Amino acid sequence: MRKQVAERAGVSEATVSRVFSESDAVKEKTREKVLKAAAELGYVPNELARQFARKRSGNLGVMLPFVPKAKLFSTYYFYEMMGGISEAAQQHGADLLLLQRMPGEDRGCGLLFRQQKIDGLILLGARDIAEEREELLKLDAEGRSFAFVNQRIDGLEHRAVETDHRRGCFLAAEHLLQQGWRRPAFVKGPPGFSNSLDRLLGFRDAMPDELKGEHAVLQGNYSRTSGLALAGEAAELLRSGQADAFVAGNDRMAIGLLQGLRQLGYESSRDYGLTGFDDSDGARLMEPTLTSVSASFYETGRMAALIALQVQSMPVDKLPVGLVVRESSLKRT
Amino acid sequence: MRKQVAERAGVSEATVSRVFSESDAVKEKTREKVLKAAAELGYVPNELARQFARKRSGNLGVMLPFVPKAKLFSTYYFYEMMGGISEAAQQHGADLLLLQRMPGEDRGCGLLFRQQKIDGLILLGARDIAEEREELLKLDAEGRSFAFVNQRIDGLEHRAVETDHRRGCFLAAEHLLQQGWRRPAFVKGPPGFSNSLDRLLGFRDAMPDELKGEHAVLQGNYSRTSGLALAGEAAELLRSGQADAFVAGNDRMAIGLLQGLRQLGYESSRDYGLTGFDDSDGARLMEPTLTSVSASFYETGRMAALIALQVQSMPVDKLPVGLVVRESSLKRT
Repeated sequence: MRKQVAERAGVSEATVSRVFSESDAVKEKTREKVLKAAAELGYVPNELARQFARKRSGNLGVMLPFVPKAKLFSTYYFYEMMGGISEAAQQHGADLLLLQRMPGEDRGCGLLFRQQKIDGLILLGARDIAEEREELLKLDAEGRSFAFVNQRIDGLEHRAVETDHRRGCFLAAEHLLQQGWRRPAFVKGPPGFSNSLDRLLGFRDAMPDELKGEHAVLQGNYSRTSGLALAGEAAELLRSGQADAFVAGNDRMAIGLLQGLRQLGYESSRDYGLTGFDDSDGARLMEPTLTSVSASFYETGRMAALIALQVQSMPVDKLPVGLVVRESSLKRT
Repeated sequence: MRKQVAERAGVSEATVSRVFSESDAVKEKTREKVLKAAAELGYVPNELARQFARKRSGNLGVMLPFVPKAKLFSTYYFYEMMGGISEAAQQHGADLLLLQRMPGEDRGCGLLFRQQKIDGLILLGARDIAEEREELLKLDAEGRSFAFVNQRIDGLEHRAVETDHRRGCFLAAEHLLQQGWRRPAFVKGPPGFSNSLDRLLGFRDAMPDELKGEHAVLQGNYSRTSGLALAGEAAELLRSGQADAFVAGNDRMAIGLLQGLRQLGYESSRDYGLTGFDDSDGARLMEPTLTSVSASFYETGRMAALIALQVQSMPVDKLPVGLVVRESSLKRT
């Protein structure tokens, strides 16, 4: 076969060998001639053939959620997760292939494995919707190596690396009640994500019986802007006495809500109590500082990568959370 | 050839075709048998052969600088840059392959191209040291498609996407003098990066003749910790009257310095003026807010990606900078 390639390319067999051993001592033009001839004959150099046989690319795929304007990289949740993924990948010699999908586009996860673009896959922002569930159940049936984070999908519980969202919001709501706030309301994340619901359930767990069915729920979408947009509705709850505190589903909504309520004349601690979720940089840096649920996204990402790289199996327990008490939740008397 | 593969794998030719056309209607076990037989015979399915001939992987490589503990992803400079790179990649249908290198390790950029892991490459944190220069000059001579950012390397000026670091620190120093501070000092980034020096040169450009050779320079390494560690030295300069203001090479050093000086009893605006560089989230959120040079790293990343993807050529001018005046630089009288 080497001989045929050499003949077709018009070079010596030694040159073909040099090209296939990735040697540098071959002119680019010659290299191209040899590769072209090899491809036309359906022949691949040994290293590629070996790689093909082994079916290893050395790449760990990371399927990114679609976020318009690529704001994704600057969100705390995402860059912490990527830090952990990157640490595990580096430790195990894998490169990270970031796969972007457009809204509604099917990136064909199975194909990525079959084409050997990736050896393992982490899905960030997976959702429990019919098309995604179907695709992932198929991957699972094929025995592909993958994991997703902070999302549960029916039948794929063994693929989900999760922090204990429910307990996180339980801790936040319990703390507000202990501070003396009497009617906390919940600011919810978008539907389609199991963590939006889990956080609401944790909030409810902490409510005394007389409030369980009575508390208000404001619907946001995890963005700061959505928190800001809810300020009018929140102010109305404060004014009418239907709420005197807010457990927000994440820090960004909490920060937006605080900014919006300030514009309307309401200050946290004085007029209402507020907690976030994520314990992001913003929680520490804002004025007043934000009480927030800390969940190690770094550790979540690291764990998901170790599972997708098949060096660790799924942990039995959810990853632990804690409450970091700062200023926004305290009741000034 | 298809026939030989079918014989070796003990399946029909139609099955071989189905495997090679990436059809889903083949059992995984059969697929593996066929692929193994094909690899042993040195045969690749058409799509791979085509890819091989075209020498396109669809991946844009991003060589990451080594940062211990993967803190990289949470730095403003980096995630803004990645946002821009990602936008351009998404727009042009490329996936991003993040390549991590360990300290001192040679990732063999040429090999990444030859193995068709990548079609283009962006180097973040490239340095003008002998080994890197040599490797990149070779890539350049081979006509590979690559770009690096905010670094100049002799002979590779046409590969460098840069913001105007020098002008940025000129603006910062000029502003401090206009505020009435009389003896600014400079807090420098690590050697080996051309932008560390460029920023110092810009600072010097703004100094009046009598200060040009007289001002102090503190040596940091762009980390917050290094700024914090310089606080003792900075306090001594303030105490002795050798400096009354600081132009820091980046925001993180400025923030560390401010925190350290506060511990020693010095407050910005009252006791000294301070500017940063990057206009990062921290600059806006800290107390007092930090005056800083804004340089669009998002745009820098986007530009570098467009060049590495060969959809745009290198701009003639450096990318523009601006000064965002906040509280830390103002002189209270």
